[in-house]
Amino acid sequence: MSHAEQLYPTLVVEANSPEDWLDAFREVRLASEQLCSPLETEDYVIQSMDDVSPPKWHLAHVTWFFEAFLLKPFLKGYVPLNEAYDHLFNSYYETHSNPFPRPRRGLLSRPTVANVYRYRRYVDDAMGLLLNNPPAEHSQAIAERVCLGIHHEQQHQELLAMDIKHILAQNPLQPVYSKRLQAPPGGQPMPMGWRAYEGGLVTIGLKEDGVEFAFDNERPAHRQYLEPFELATRPVTNQDYIRFMEQGGYQDPALWLSDGWHLIRENGWTAPLYWARDGEQWYQFTLTGWRKVDPLAPVCHVSFYEADAFARWAGARLPTEAEWEQAATHTRNRTGNFAESGYLQPVAAEAGSASNPNDAPLQMFGDVWEWTGSAYRPYPGFRTLAGSLGEYNGKFMSGQMVLRGGCCATPASHIRPTYRNFYPPSARWAFSGFRLAREATR
Amino acid sequence: MSHAEQLYPTLVVEANSPEDWLDAFREVRLASEQLCSPLETEDYVIQSMDDVSPPKWHLAHVTWFFEAFLLKPFLKGYVPLNEAYDHLFNSYYETHSNPFPRPRRGLLSRPTVANVYRYRRYVDDAMGLLLNNPPAEHSQAIAERVCLGIHHEQQHQELLAMDIKHILAQNPLQPVYSKRLQAPPGGQPMPMGWRAYEGGLVTIGLKEDGVEFAFDNERPAHRQYLEPFELATRPVTNQDYIRFMEQGGYQDPALWLSDGWHLIRENGWTAPLYWARDGEQWYQFTLTGWRKVDPLAPVCHVSFYEADAFARWAGARLPTEAEWEQAATHTRNRTGNFAESGYLQPVAAEAGSASNPNDAPLQMFGDVWEWTGSAYRPYPGFRTLAGSLGEYNGKFMSGQMVLRGGCCATPASHIRPTYRNFYPPSARWAFSGFRLAREATR
Amino acid sequence: MSHAEQLYPTLVVEANSPEDWLDAFREVRLASEQLCSPLETEDYVIQSMDDVSPPKWHLAHVTWFFEAFLLKPFLKGYVPLNEAYDHLFNSYYETHSNPFPRPRRGLLSRPTVANVYRYRRYVDDAMGLLLNNPPAEHSQAIAERVCLGIHHEQQHQELLAMDIKHILAQNPLQPVYSKRLQAPPGGQPMPMGWRAYEGGLVTIGLKEDGVEFAFDNERPAHRQYLEPFELATRPVTNQDYIRFMEQGGYQDPALWLSDGWHLIRENGWTAPLYWARDGEQWYQFTLTGWRKVDPLAPVCHVSFYEADAFARWAGARLPTEAEWEQAATHTRNRTGNFAESGYLQPVAAEAGSASNPNDAPLQMFGDVWEWTGSAYRPYPGFRTLAGSLGEYNGKFMSGQMVLRGGCCATPASHIRPTYRNFYPPSARWAFSGFRLAREATR
Amino acid sequence: MSHAEQLYPTLVVEANSPEDWLDAFREVRLASEQLCSPLETEDYVIQSMDDVSPPKWHLAHVTWFFEAFLLKPFLKGYVPLNEAYDHLFNSYYETHSNPFPRPRRGLLSRPTVANVYRYRRYVDDAMGLLLNNPPAEHSQAIAERVCLGIHHEQQHQELLAMDIKHILAQNPLQPVYSKRLQAPPGGQPMPMGWRAYEGGLVTIGLKEDGVEFAFDNERPAHRQYLEPFELATRPVTNQDYIRFMEQGGYQDPALWLSDGWHLIRENGWTAPLYWARDGEQWYQFTLTGWRKVDPLAPVCHVSFYEADAFARWAGARLPTEAEWEQAATHTRNRTGNFAESGYLQPVAAEAGSASNPNDAPLQMFGDVWEWTGSAYRPYPGFRTLAGSLGEYNGKFMSGQMVLRGGCCATPASHIRPTYRNFYPPSARWAFSGFRLAREATR
Repeated sequence: MSHAEQLYPTLVVEANSPEDWLDAFREVRLASEQLCSPLETEDYVIQSMDDVSPPKWHLAHVTWFFEAFLLKPFLKGYVPLNEAYDHLFNSYYETHSNPFPRPRRGLLSRPTVANVYRYRRYVDDAMGLLLNNPPAEHSQAIAERVCLGIHHEQQHQELLAMDIKHILAQNPLQPVYSKRLQAPPGGQPMPMGWRAYEGGLVTIGLKEDGVEFAFDNERPAHRQYLEPFELATRPVTNQDYIRFMEQGGYQDPALWLSDGWHLIRENGWTAPLYWARDGEQWYQFTLTGWRKVDPLAPVCHVSFYEADAFARWAGARLPTEAEWEQAATHTRNRTGNFAESGYLQPVAAEAGSASNPNDAPLQMFGDVWEWTGSAYRPYPGFRTLAGSLGEYNGKFMSGQMVLRGGCCATPASHIRPTYRNFYPPSARWAFSGFRLAREATR
Repeated sequence: MSHAEQLYPTLVVEANSPEDWLDAFREVRLASEQLCSPLETEDYVIQSMDDVSPPKWHLAHVTWFFEAFLLKPFLKGYVPLNEAYDHLFNSYYETHSNPFPRPRRGLLSRPTVANVYRYRRYVDDAMGLLLNNPPAEHSQAIAERVCLGIHHEQQHQELLAMDIKHILAQNPLQPVYSKRLQAPPGGQPMPMGWRAYEGGLVTIGLKEDGVEFAFDNERPAHRQYLEPFELATRPVTNQDYIRFMEQGGYQDPALWLSDGWHLIRENGWTAPLYWARDGEQWYQFTLTGWRKVDPLAPVCHVSFYEADAFARWAGARLPTEAEWEQAATHTRNRTGNFAESGYLQPVAAEAGSASNPNDAPLQMFGDVWEWTGSAYRPYPGFRTLAGSLGEYNGKFMSGQMVLRGGCCATPASHIRPTYRNFYPPSARWAFSGFRLAREATR
Repeated sequence: MSHAEQLYPTLVVEANSPEDWLDAFREVRLASEQLCSPLETEDYVIQSMDDVSPPKWHLAHVTWFFEAFLLKPFLKGYVPLNEAYDHLFNSYYETHSNPFPRPRRGLLSRPTVANVYRYRRYVDDAMGLLLNNPPAEHSQAIAERVCLGIHHEQQHQELLAMDIKHILAQNPLQPVYSKRLQAPPGGQPMPMGWRAYEGGLVTIGLKEDGVEFAFDNERPAHRQYLEPFELATRPVTNQDYIRFMEQGGYQDPALWLSDGWHLIRENGWTAPLYWARDGEQWYQFTLTGWRKVDPLAPVCHVSFYEADAFARWAGARLPTEAEWEQAATHTRNRTGNFAESGYLQPVAAEAGSASNPNDAPLQMFGDVWEWTGSAYRPYPGFRTLAGSLGEYNGKFMSGQMVLRGGCCATPASHIRPTYRNFYPPSARWAFSGFRLAREATR
Repeated sequence: MSHAEQLYPTLVVEANSPEDWLDAFREVRLASEQLCSPLETEDYVIQSMDDVSPPKWHLAHVTWFFEAFLLKPFLKGYVPLNEAYDHLFNSYYETHSNPFPRPRRGLLSRPTVANVYRYRRYVDDAMGLLLNNPPAEHSQAIAERVCLGIHHEQQHQELLAMDIKHILAQNPLQPVYSKRLQAPPGGQPMPMGWRAYEGGLVTIGLKEDGVEFAFDNERPAHRQYLEPFELATRPVTNQDYIRFMEQGGYQDPALWLSDGWHLIRENGWTAPLYWARDGEQWYQFTLTGWRKVDPLAPVCHVSFYEADAFARWAGARLPTEAEWEQAATHTRNRTGNFAESGYLQPVAAEAGSASNPNDAPLQMFGDVWEWTGSAYRPYPGFRTLAGSLGEYNGKFMSGQMVLRGGCCATPASHIRPTYRNFYPPSARWAFSGFRLAREATR
């Protein structure tokens, strides 16, 4: 795993004292740059669709985040490197300054990649000054914001992997991100079983009992009542999904939500994103180029609509996010195929993992984000952060569905059982798959 | 109220025996036609936006519903009047036949209005045959489908009112649907108070304990846990909303969901639909023409985004649909300003209603559909109806928000505390308003 | 031809004295209404695409033209029936008043058809007053504008036929405009020959030597130098065109202008508008319903791009408008299949016409408008009319191609050898065909 | 002018013998690269609108042209560097291979800029082989195609200047292409006069009497008859145009072609492209950054619609292309502000040029392309080149207007009096201005 380690260092966000933050900060900053190290300068500039941002924009935006929310308010005498960056690299904080229009990010040749790295150095140096000697009256706010900024940059590391993949996939030259990624291990067929959960009155959301970081949207902890349910012991695999495709899944309107049916018809979707068939064999574009689809790996790059249609076809449904969280909370094993594994692609469950003593569901964490049946809405009692940071999560609570568990491009230290990711139901460029659920069969 | 009664007869859907359905059927059929009786032939033809259907299409589609789901399967020897209607008037039942494209409904001059009424007569006659002598082996299915068809036609009666309003509003000649509608009564200012609810483990959805009709999406009854909450004693009024507008509500991005902010900017929305200002005075287009905005009437024709932004501005939130239902279930008074009132416009709460002994919330039913904070998703254990009727509700369970309580264009017999209406968060042409909620303050 | 005569009276615009104009006015007004007499009320309301106007809008707009440009300026004390009509029925005269947006004409249910006819009566009566006693100081202007108004209404008669056809063609019920139209006569195969013209310095445009009416865009007469050329003795027929289709005309990019190639690919065009194939047989939608394509009739409802591609495939080209005019000016026979024939569809050349003594080209006038290779631009020395009427023709002199000769829906009295019609090169809903030309072969 | 010379060497295309072509070839290849030398790698990648191509695409496409039309057919044993480039860098030759979709050119990060330069080297070397030893049986074809390829690359040099300007103009950082461009000289006010031409029967198009190169669209020479006309002695200046703006030119629909009026309203155009006002002063974006508008320089970056509206406002019109050519043919002085001047921006006429002895019009060549009133259509007898090169010009002969005279970004050796450039009437990113004409006043 040596090559992959070079690409993506394990980030241990276990900073207990203010001074530890600087190490964590430097680690996460390094990780972003290592992730981009295989890129050509030209790759950094492309915006392949509105949802995608050019890699250099990501690198600058996460830097701007530290500048806007830490250096400007807390580092005395801080002078920005370039005042215009506050416009260019503000993503969507309308109450902070006027964000540069998202669909035009790919029209910016300047600042150059070299200048973006210079910007990173400049901000990193200033952050060093700030964190080595934080003003006492702001130390709590600084600690919180550094922590937020680190997790923010981790989110963009995953976005970088998604966006780089999408950018390269547009190119008929079929460029390869890196040949040095880990080759996926062999798996062995594993029948899909069911694990029963009793439900009842459960606590959902972050229990404020430790030092762990969490986003505002995971709060507050609150009670929900769950009817008994069952959860599949593993995600839906490519093999499962090919069966759905072969049996006419994309042709039968009875399986689809209305919006989904119109979406697949208008776009001519008949397979997951990045898939292509050559004769009888399906291939998929990956960050190591085109590869045969591994029948045992979790299906990936499907929309919520496709996940939902598959579930209906299978006589099941998607779990709610509360059901998923309830199961995940009781899963002792939170390891998985994360960014640090060095695959950057979902892989088949490892052979040994089948003999799971507790029959706990496999691959709850890592590999693929799992679409849930829950719309992304605030928890009862939800409060946004104060100031412009209140725009971080809360304002996106419409039109999106919750996904859980992290994926092969998520840093391992970034995920939690309570973590709520969200995408529009039509999105496919995330590493998104799903797992089935059903009512208890008693 | 004599004129309005002519316009819209009270429908008592209390059919206890199969033979009663014919009366109910005839009543609802008559009501649709009376609703259209003030129209000019030309009004029946217009589709003013994709969401709107021409009135003659509504009249034909509800007729097709009885033909497709009752006459064809159950009336021996039934011959359709025109085979092509099965294509033209199928709204969205993809598993039944190929629906005519929705955005092209306004391109159909034929069948003429007269022929649509002939189609209604033809189907009504056949329904008389069927219901007077229903085949015994199908009597249960027939009873259920007649009931569904009646409620379906009631839904389209409300849509007719919405669509006619939208159609007439496009016309610079400012046509009036009817001058014979009831004039709204005077109200008196009523401060917005709060009513506290204990929450806890409650049952939501239809309890199957009576003969009452309900849609599949209200089922099954299930338990939910609610934190204690408070609900406003009345909907937000025009006066409240004007204050929000005057204090810059439409200009402050901090108040808005991101999708909502972009929507109002792109469309230049700065007031509810159908509003226009002349000097200091706001006017609104109604089915009786342009009128001064009544400060005491509930605000209407706002999107979910506007309701949500107002709530944030007011330091409150929208209720979840479970909270709303919990409050509504315990409201003894389920009367309200429904279609039968003859206003076809929300009105100020009646003076007497202020002295509500139990301090129960006012205007929970009627006047305006109330946006909730809940996305429209299936209840745990939800099952669609069998066959093509399974497409009735279930396939729309993405991208929409739930509204509750009925409105001034809803037939009174159509509504229930468990009734779930739904629209996309951007929709404004329904009679949609809202009521505030907040966490319990104890 | 009795039925057709009822449908469309021959208009003899030979008014030599002011008082004759009233007769001509009444004749043309009657013709418009007779053209619409087979319509259902609902047909009058539909706008099937942005280019199409609802028939009632046409009837009102031509009426508005007389009101705006004759009654208001010249009839003392004239009071409009409805002030709002000046907005609704102004087509595009930006300097006169604010025109109602064209793509929204189909959203207007009011004024009703009956009210539009009332408007016609009202204006007709006022025109009677004006023309029976025209103020002497304005008699010249009045005569000119009445004449313009009459020809304007004739243009809209042709548009009515085009638009009614397009409206009915959208409807799966396949409505028939009128069964009483003339049945097309049988023709006999006629090989396409060539007629040579010497070219040289010729005069193009209207010679101001008679009383004849002409539009400003036909003026002034001016000299052009033409190289010797040849013109086909008849238009391209359906049979000719089917051969082009069968030999891959729509699949070979080498035949097409770039804009045309992209247009046919994006829209999937593989045949003229209104054509559909059933097995080996081609059918076309006509105002009398679906009919077999007549192989000997001129091809119709093709765009300029299709005409141009056919010409290239045939090793020929389209004539310039000057070439066409030069040939037409020397064609003694200006009769043809015009609206008065009662076919409202191009027909095969009559058998007898083959024995044309002078070998003059057949069907130069009537049947189909003939696309020329000339862009619609002003003649040297072109001057628009004064005032708002200057917007009549001149402002459309970009992005369009010239067509010549009139068609089966053009009133016979409306056409001249110098007449310049124009459409965007992508338009197909006009009765548009074409004739080939080539360089002189000597 | 030393710096500018480094940027853009004068190309003398006077190759009389086959062996001279290699020198000319090398010169033009060098010029393209020198033009790009000030760019950052990232600048090469951007496509700022569909009409713009990324600079690296231009560099590769002109290279592909030599490969596709010379090396592959004529250099025995030639092996392409990368087979996929035939897809990626084919612009629009549908009969050659499948062109990569134009609007997606900006999504290609690969081949990298370095690889594009490698491709250039590879093709340049192969061209050296071919031209040093051309196969005798193809020497004529090779000579013609090399010449075409050289002029083709010159066209793309101008496009590079236009596209680089557009790309940089999108960027809020206001990047400067090069600070080393020539500073524009001072001019002196020069009243606009008129020069009269007799017209009559003139010869238009290329007389085949020399060795000079010309495109197929300039052929064949043919006669046209011109009425007497007058041409303005200089182009319309910024000062003239500001007067038009100040006097409400953009607000008066009577001045505009209908398409133009809708265009400026929808896009909110109230000034030429690249203009911005600060207080009373107008600024324009240039390749040397933002500069005050020079009142005496020709107005530039206006659409045909704006030129046409100005002309109408001024009581004049645009010249036809024949009028322009007739005047240009008799202008002895064909020098002007071309790319080699090193301004890359139109400049005021030089002081001395006012005392033009023959009162010949100034600045007919260089500075700005001059919109004519002529649609771009084939000359009588026009024949395209054989094979795929037939797509070079002919297929664009719809929907465009002719411009004449070259501009400040055109290589001096590239222009001729018969040269026909063309753009859609809405285009503004070319260096496009105009000159007035009018009917002879005698």
